[in-house]
Amino acid sequence: MSNDPLERFRVAAAERERAGLHRTLRPRTSGGDGLLDLASNDYLGLTHDPRVTRAAADAALTWGAGATGSRLVTGTTGLHAELEAALAHFTGAAGGLVFSSGYLANLGAVAALTGPGSTIVSDAANHASLVDACRLSRAAVVVTPHLDVDAVERALSTRDTQHAAVVTDSVFSVDGDLAPLTALHDVARRHGALLIVDEAHALGVIGPEGRGAVHAAGLAGASDIVRTAVLSKALGSQGGVVLGAPEIRSALIDTARSFIFDTGLAPAAVGAALAALGILRDEPWRPGQARAHARTLAGLLGDAGLTPNVPAAAVVSGVVGDPHAAVAAQARCAEHGIRVGCFRPPSVPAGRACLRLTARADLTAAELARIAAALASLAPAAAS
Amino acid sequence: MSNDPLERFRVAAAERERAGLHRTLRPRTSGGDGLLDLASNDYLGLTHDPRVTRAAADAALTWGAGATGSRLVTGTTGLHAELEAALAHFTGAAGGLVFSSGYLANLGAVAALTGPGSTIVSDAANHASLVDACRLSRAAVVVTPHLDVDAVERALSTRDTQHAAVVTDSVFSVDGDLAPLTALHDVARRHGALLIVDEAHALGVIGPEGRGAVHAAGLAGASDIVRTAVLSKALGSQGGVVLGAPEIRSALIDTARSFIFDTGLAPAAVGAALAALGILRDEPWRPGQARAHARTLAGLLGDAGLTPNVPAAAVVSGVVGDPHAAVAAQARCAEHGIRVGCFRPPSVPAGRACLRLTARADLTAAELARIAAALASLAPAAAS
Repeated sequence: MSNDPLERFRVAAAERERAGLHRTLRPRTSGGDGLLDLASNDYLGLTHDPRVTRAAADAALTWGAGATGSRLVTGTTGLHAELEAALAHFTGAAGGLVFSSGYLANLGAVAALTGPGSTIVSDAANHASLVDACRLSRAAVVVTPHLDVDAVERALSTRDTQHAAVVTDSVFSVDGDLAPLTALHDVARRHGALLIVDEAHALGVIGPEGRGAVHAAGLAGASDIVRTAVLSKALGSQGGVVLGAPEIRSALIDTARSFIFDTGLAPAAVGAALAALGILRDEPWRPGQARAHARTLAGLLGDAGLTPNVPAAAVVSGVVGDPHAAVAAQARCAEHGIRVGCFRPPSVPAGRACLRLTARADLTAAELARIAAALASLAPAAAS
Repeated sequence: MSNDPLERFRVAAAERERAGLHRTLRPRTSGGDGLLDLASNDYLGLTHDPRVTRAAADAALTWGAGATGSRLVTGTTGLHAELEAALAHFTGAAGGLVFSSGYLANLGAVAALTGPGSTIVSDAANHASLVDACRLSRAAVVVTPHLDVDAVERALSTRDTQHAAVVTDSVFSVDGDLAPLTALHDVARRHGALLIVDEAHALGVIGPEGRGAVHAAGLAGASDIVRTAVLSKALGSQGGVVLGAPEIRSALIDTARSFIFDTGLAPAAVGAALAALGILRDEPWRPGQARAHARTLAGLLGDAGLTPNVPAAAVVSGVVGDPHAAVAAQARCAEHGIRVGCFRPPSVPAGRACLRLTARADLTAAELARIAAALASLAPAAAS
């Protein structure tokens, strides 16, 4: 037995290398690398919008480069309060509470609203941050098969705790499919359970004005639904938010560890998200355009022989299977000038390595033609 | 039994209200409220430094308002790479990896570098993010009494796992005292354990040039020490970093869930931290000044009859005991124009509610005189 605590990390790294699971960070340059981006989560094309970047800059110059402390001490500015009110108003929620990341919003909401006396019923395809939140909560956790409302009902009706919460993404992060929110809410309500919905990939994309999947389902006013969302995808910034009833917001301020013990979100990110929300209200064509482009991309993937999802939002995936083959397909797209994502274990289950494309509202007809040519090169006939 | 899942949050809120543990967010205004700040973690006075805020603004305008995706997909810019190299160089570490918050850096480092086959030995006063990281890790966790090196050695020598890690803050967040790093490293090395040190309150403050407590102890080159730190306190920005050997950085890129599944840190925060690091190199008087002011504040608290800590860094605490009395003391300081922190359970153990003051490098003699008058008003004689 080696006494060097680094030895096992060298062994594990060599194993990941052999399995095609080693990763490298590739820094972008400010001028860009000429690749057309279909890999980011900038669904509405707002990250580089001058109105948004200018708002980020102004917020830093006015309020400082950081929040200076926990939200409970000195880390809440008037800008944070303004953003929370705007997010609540936009989504039809009673109130909002901003966290420094979506990951921390999920950890805080799920752990603080459940606990040892609760059962959490969690969809098998939920995002890693929800999975970690379940682990942190010390609640009894039942993982149900993906989209299986009957399994959720069985878990709630056979639980041996008084309290319960059903936890789900509204748009799932890899396959881009939609949770059955109305059915889940019916079941949760019948069993006195909270429904916690992560709208990370839905806010700004789902519904006629991008108000999210809960709003689109007509459930924005339900006090027993708690929503989480991020400011880092459609809103082009950074951070997370929990949306819900006053009782929920108050409970999180008093007890959510990832809220209490974390520095507040930096003013620049707050200002950028506020500006993006304003653009979303003024330019309501963006969400529909992002969804239409996603359907186009799914069609092109299908034509190339990759099995695509039926995209409900802006996320489009095409399963390749083997991680080495998926990396090769990603490289072929890059040769054709297109940057696509490549998801390998542990981001996806073993044997399900896939290309992941994200539609942006601001893709042009010329760009869509370039994309079509790139994806056509992935077809078996083209590869031979 | 009520079927309304919000009912228990109303009950719990009423209980917290009675116990003096209810919290309210008080948004700051951009013009300030006239209070002198001794509550933030802006130890070097850099959050509002025009060189830092300008760098934040420029980064947003150049690189966009957000990172657009996970660090592994599109969320790594050249600016991220530059900051990681600068942080590693400044602290004498082999490499650095930036996370979107210090909380997530701790979750990622501890969980990815330990696991079910490991034992974690964790100081009882460690920060909440380290405690949560232990829970997430699924390792066997032994909590040792505060600063008790013998207890750490016993835990390591009696463990029944092959792997182990010792986890500690270097400067503890509430009492501001220093971990016995040299002794902990000796013990960890004898037992083949990693030493993971959170330098959140030490980076920029401890050591002649603010390179942190590990560097000050002459241990910067030890490959079996992993450091975490934040960009949100002395560096005036937002985010976290893990500093360590190439094997550590590679393991985190491939397996740390809070790195892989989180959007990268926003460019504005990256640019601000880089600028702050440059100022720290150019103006090496700042760390020593912050520490000297902390000792002055501790003396003033002692004069007022509150039991202060012996500050090793910039954090100064004075125990009040009862949470209502602590809030009243905080209000008295505000009447005298001084904003101080007030820590109540669960931030501190029950019965240990305290005032928490933080020194800033840029406090003037006139400001220190105002502070002295405010703290004198807390003395029993002054209160009668």
